[in-house]
Amino acid sequence: MTKQRLYLYDTTLRDGQQSAGVQFSVPEKIEIAKALDGIGIDYIEGGWPGANPTDSDFFEARPQTRATFTAFGMTKRAGRSAENDDVLAGVMNANTPAVCLVGKTHDYHVSTALGITLEENLENIRASVAHMVAKGREALFDAEHFFDGYKANLGYALECCRAAHEAGARWIVLCDTNGGTLPGEIGQIVREVIAAGIPGDKIGIHCHDDTGNAVAGSLAAVEAGARQVQGTLNGLGERCGNANLISLIPTLMLKEPYASTLATGISHEKLRDLTRLSRKLDDILNRVPLRSAPYVGASAFTHKAGLHASAILKNPDTYEHIDPALVGNTRLIPMSNQAGQSNLRARLKGMGIEVAKDDPRLARILEIIKEREDQGYAYDGAQASFELLARAELGQLPKFFEVKRYKVTVERRKNRYDKMVSISEAVVVVKVGGQKMLSVSESMDEHGHDRGPVNALSKALTKDLGPYQHLIDDMKLVDFRVRITQGGTEAVTRVIIDSEDGAGQRWSTVGVSPNIVDASFEALLDAMIWKLLRDGAVPA
Amino acid sequence: MTKQRLYLYDTTLRDGQQSAGVQFSVPEKIEIAKALDGIGIDYIEGGWPGANPTDSDFFEARPQTRATFTAFGMTKRAGRSAENDDVLAGVMNANTPAVCLVGKTHDYHVSTALGITLEENLENIRASVAHMVAKGREALFDAEHFFDGYKANLGYALECCRAAHEAGARWIVLCDTNGGTLPGEIGQIVREVIAAGIPGDKIGIHCHDDTGNAVAGSLAAVEAGARQVQGTLNGLGERCGNANLISLIPTLMLKEPYASTLATGISHEKLRDLTRLSRKLDDILNRVPLRSAPYVGASAFTHKAGLHASAILKNPDTYEHIDPALVGNTRLIPMSNQAGQSNLRARLKGMGIEVAKDDPRLARILEIIKEREDQGYAYDGAQASFELLARAELGQLPKFFEVKRYKVTVERRKNRYDKMVSISEAVVVVKVGGQKMLSVSESMDEHGHDRGPVNALSKALTKDLGPYQHLIDDMKLVDFRVRITQGGTEAVTRVIIDSEDGAGQRWSTVGVSPNIVDASFEALLDAMIWKLLRDGAVPA
Repeated sequence: MTKQRLYLYDTTLRDGQQSAGVQFSVPEKIEIAKALDGIGIDYIEGGWPGANPTDSDFFEARPQTRATFTAFGMTKRAGRSAENDDVLAGVMNANTPAVCLVGKTHDYHVSTALGITLEENLENIRASVAHMVAKGREALFDAEHFFDGYKANLGYALECCRAAHEAGARWIVLCDTNGGTLPGEIGQIVREVIAAGIPGDKIGIHCHDDTGNAVAGSLAAVEAGARQVQGTLNGLGERCGNANLISLIPTLMLKEPYASTLATGISHEKLRDLTRLSRKLDDILNRVPLRSAPYVGASAFTHKAGLHASAILKNPDTYEHIDPALVGNTRLIPMSNQAGQSNLRARLKGMGIEVAKDDPRLARILEIIKEREDQGYAYDGAQASFELLARAELGQLPKFFEVKRYKVTVERRKNRYDKMVSISEAVVVVKVGGQKMLSVSESMDEHGHDRGPVNALSKALTKDLGPYQHLIDDMKLVDFRVRITQGGTEAVTRVIIDSEDGAGQRWSTVGVSPNIVDASFEALLDAMIWKLLRDGAVPA
Repeated sequence: MTKQRLYLYDTTLRDGQQSAGVQFSVPEKIEIAKALDGIGIDYIEGGWPGANPTDSDFFEARPQTRATFTAFGMTKRAGRSAENDDVLAGVMNANTPAVCLVGKTHDYHVSTALGITLEENLENIRASVAHMVAKGREALFDAEHFFDGYKANLGYALECCRAAHEAGARWIVLCDTNGGTLPGEIGQIVREVIAAGIPGDKIGIHCHDDTGNAVAGSLAAVEAGARQVQGTLNGLGERCGNANLISLIPTLMLKEPYASTLATGISHEKLRDLTRLSRKLDDILNRVPLRSAPYVGASAFTHKAGLHASAILKNPDTYEHIDPALVGNTRLIPMSNQAGQSNLRARLKGMGIEVAKDDPRLARILEIIKEREDQGYAYDGAQASFELLARAELGQLPKFFEVKRYKVTVERRKNRYDKMVSISEAVVVVKVGGQKMLSVSESMDEHGHDRGPVNALSKALTKDLGPYQHLIDDMKLVDFRVRITQGGTEAVTRVIIDSEDGAGQRWSTVGVSPNIVDASFEALLDAMIWKLLRDGAVPA
C-alpha cells in the first residue's frame, strides 16, 4: 500500500515565541531553523516579517533550508487592496517560498474584533490568498478560531475555508486558537469539513494545549484526514503552548493507525536525533529539560518502582512501550529510597562496577543514599556524585588530595569613579601528596569583570593541583542549579553543577549545605574528583 | 436528565511517588491526603502498606477523610491461599475501607514475569477479590497491562476482568501500564469490554503519559462508558507520569459531552481551589510550578501576543476558553520584548498606576525592560521588581535608604573538635535619612547552624533599618532560584527570590550579576523596597 504524505509544520519561531519568558535572538532563530531542517521538518515558520526588528532581521539572515521557509502575517485589511496593504507587503517582501496568513472565520470575531461585514472578511481572505498565488508563493490560510466559529456558525466558517480553497490556497489550516476544543470534537468537525468539500490533503491542524489535549487533538484531526500538523518543539507557545511536535512525531512514525498508512519527511535514522533536538531547544532557552517529557524526557524510560526495575532487567518490553533508542533516549534505573538492591547493581554495572549479588556493601550504600536524600541530596540528577559515593563505600575511590580550609570574600563598594563594583577573593589550602599548598585567586576575568565567589573558589582550587593540573584544565562549568530544599529558617541549599570537558563529556554533581558557597564547593570538588577518576589520574 | 456519577480516584501518594526525585514523608502524605479530601476527590490511594516503612507508618497515622481511603497491594501469589499470603495480609491489616489489588491480565506477563499458568493467575484474582469482599472491604482490581494484554489475547484479558467482577469487585480498573495505547484505541477497547458484559459503572481507567495522551485517553474511556478515573495531582508518576487529575477535573466539570451528563464529587465552588491545590503539591515537592500547565499554570491565561492582549482587554472570551476564576486562576498581561504599550498600561493599571495613553515614559519603560532582559533579567517571573522599575521611571519610587557598601566572608576550616565547619559574616553600610549605619551579622541561627552568606547579608541589611524595622520584621524568604543565563566564561547569574509576609502575601524579585552573592543582594533589596512601598512606608 502506498503511504499518504503527512506534512509537519513547525511554528516554534513564531507561535513558540509567544511563550512567557521566551525571546529568541537572530542567531538563536538561525540555530533552531537549521536544527529543524536537519531532522526533516517540512515547513519552518520563521516569524512575522515587519512586526518587530528581530523577525525582520531574521528573514534577511535566514539560512538555506531544504524545508519550505514560511513567513507569517495576516490577511489584508478591509478598505484597501492586497497590493496596497503595507502590513501584507512587509510579509511578502521577506521573499519566502511560502506565506501563511491568518484570518478570521468566526463570525463573532469578524463583527466585534475587526468591525467589518462578514462579506468584507470573505473578500479579504479571497484577495489575500489570490495575491500570494499571483506572486508565485505557496499560500497557506490559518483559519483563526475555526472550531469555535464552526460551532457558532457552521455555514460561515466553511465559507471562509472555501474562499481560501477556491482562491488557490495549498493549505487551509484549522486553528483551535483558544485551545478549548476536545479531541473527539476536533475529529468530528474535521470529518465534516472534508465531507463539505475541502480535501483532507489540503487541511492542516493547529492545536493549543489549554486542556492538555493538543497532541491528542492533532492526532484526532490526522485520523479524520488532515494531512498537515502544526506544532512547536517541546510544546512551546502562547498560554499552555502549542501541540508538541516532539511528542507527535514518534507517535505518528511508530504507532498505528499512523505508522503503516502515513509517511512524514523524517527518516527513522533521523528520528534518533529527536532527544537531542528537544534538549537543544532547552539549551538555547537555558531551561532545565522536563524530566517527564514523553519519549525524550530523562525519566521517560526511568524505572523507579522496584518491581518494574527487576522486570525490565529481564525483558525491557515489560514496562516500555517503545525501545528508547528509536528516539535517541536511554533507559535509566535511578537511585532512590524506593530502589532495591537489583536497581543498584544494574546502575553500578552501567558504571563498570561489578558487585556480587549478596555483597553486604549494597545494603550499606542504599542506607547512605537514603540518609543523604533525607538531608537534601538528590542523586537522580547527579550520577557522578552517586558514583563517587558508591566507589568510596566499595573502597574504589583513591584520595587524590585533601582540602584543609578555604576562605571567600565578596565585597561591593564604590570605585574611584564613584561606581559600585564588586570583587571576590578566595584562598584555598589543599594538601596534595603530603605537601600543603596555599592558593589565592580573585574573581576578575580577563576583561576585568567580576565573576563571583564560586568562580574565585573554583580558580583557587584548580590553581595548585600540581600533578593533576593538565586533567582539569579542559573542565568547565556549564550549568548551575540551586534549590532551597527545606523552607523557612531551616532552609537547606542544594546545588547541582553540570560540568563538561574538552571531549564534550558531561557530568553532574551535587552539594548540599545551608551555605550556598559551601554547597557549591562540595559540588565543584565532586566534579573535579570524578574527572580525575574518569581520566585515570594516579594519586600523588 | 439525571447525571451519572463519575468517581475520581487519586494515586498521587502511591503511583505519583514513583516519579523520579519524589519521596513523600509521612507528614507530607497526611497534608496531601487532607487537601485531596478537601476538594472532594472520591478515593485516596495512600500507598502500599507493608512495602516500606513510610507507607506502613502513614496508614497508621492516616487522617479521617470523607473520601474512601484505599490501600494498594497485589493479588495473592500462587501456591498459597489469600489468607496465608503475608504480603496481602500486610495490605489488609491497614484496615482501610477499600483495597485495590493489582494483578496480571496479559498472558505474556503471567507466563514470563510470574511463571505460573494462566488458570493459576485467574484463581489468584478470584480468590484475592473474594477475600477482600469477605473481609467487608470495597474491592478494586487493577488490571495491569490490560490494553496490551487485550490486543495480544482478548479472551484471556476479558476472562481476568470477569473473574474479578464475578468475585465481587466494585471496580475493575483497566490500566495502560506502559502508557503506549492511544486514545482512539482506549475508547474502542473500553466499548468492547462493556459490550462483553462488564458494566461501565464498574470500569475504571488508569492511563500513563508516555505519548502525551494520558488525559485524552482517560477522556476517551469516560466517553466510552468508564465511570472511574484514576490519576495524580500535576500528573506525577512513574516515567512520564499518570493522567493529570488537575487537567482532567475542569474538563470533566466544564466541558461537553461530560459536564451535562456526569456528576463528580467536586462542587463548582470547590473547583475554585484547583489552582491552589496544584501549587500546594509543588510547594511540598519544592518544585517551581509549571507555568504552561493547563487551567492552573501561571501562563494558562497569560496573553503575550500584542494582538491577543488588546483583544482580551476588550473582551476576555476572544482568547480564553474558560473564565480563569472558575479554577481559581487569574489573567495576566506580562511584560516582555513583545509587549506593546497597551499591555504595559494594562499591567500598570493592575498595580494601581494610571498612565495616559500617549505618555512618552511608556516607551522608555519598554526600552529599559528590553535592555535589562538582554542582560539576563526576567520580569515575567518577578512582578515586584518590574513594578519598582516602572515606578522609578515614573517618579513614583521614594528613596527609603541607600546601601553604601557591603562585605561578606565565607570561611570553612576545622574547629577545635577537628570537624570542618563553615561560618559567614556580613558587614553592610546603609544610609537612612542622612545617617550612616554600619551593621554586622553572622550566619549562625539560634541553633548554632551556619545558614550561609545570603542569610548573613539579609540579616545585616535588616538589622539597622531603624524607622522601617517593624515593616520588614515579618518578611521571609520562601524560595530562591538561581540560573546561569549565559554559558561559558561569560556566565551571568539570575537570582529570583520569592518573599512572603505575615499576611501571606507573596512577591517575587530578580537580581542579575556574574556574582551570585551580588545577584542575591539585588533581589533581596528589591524585595525589601517593594514591601516598604506596599506598606506605605514614609521615607525617613
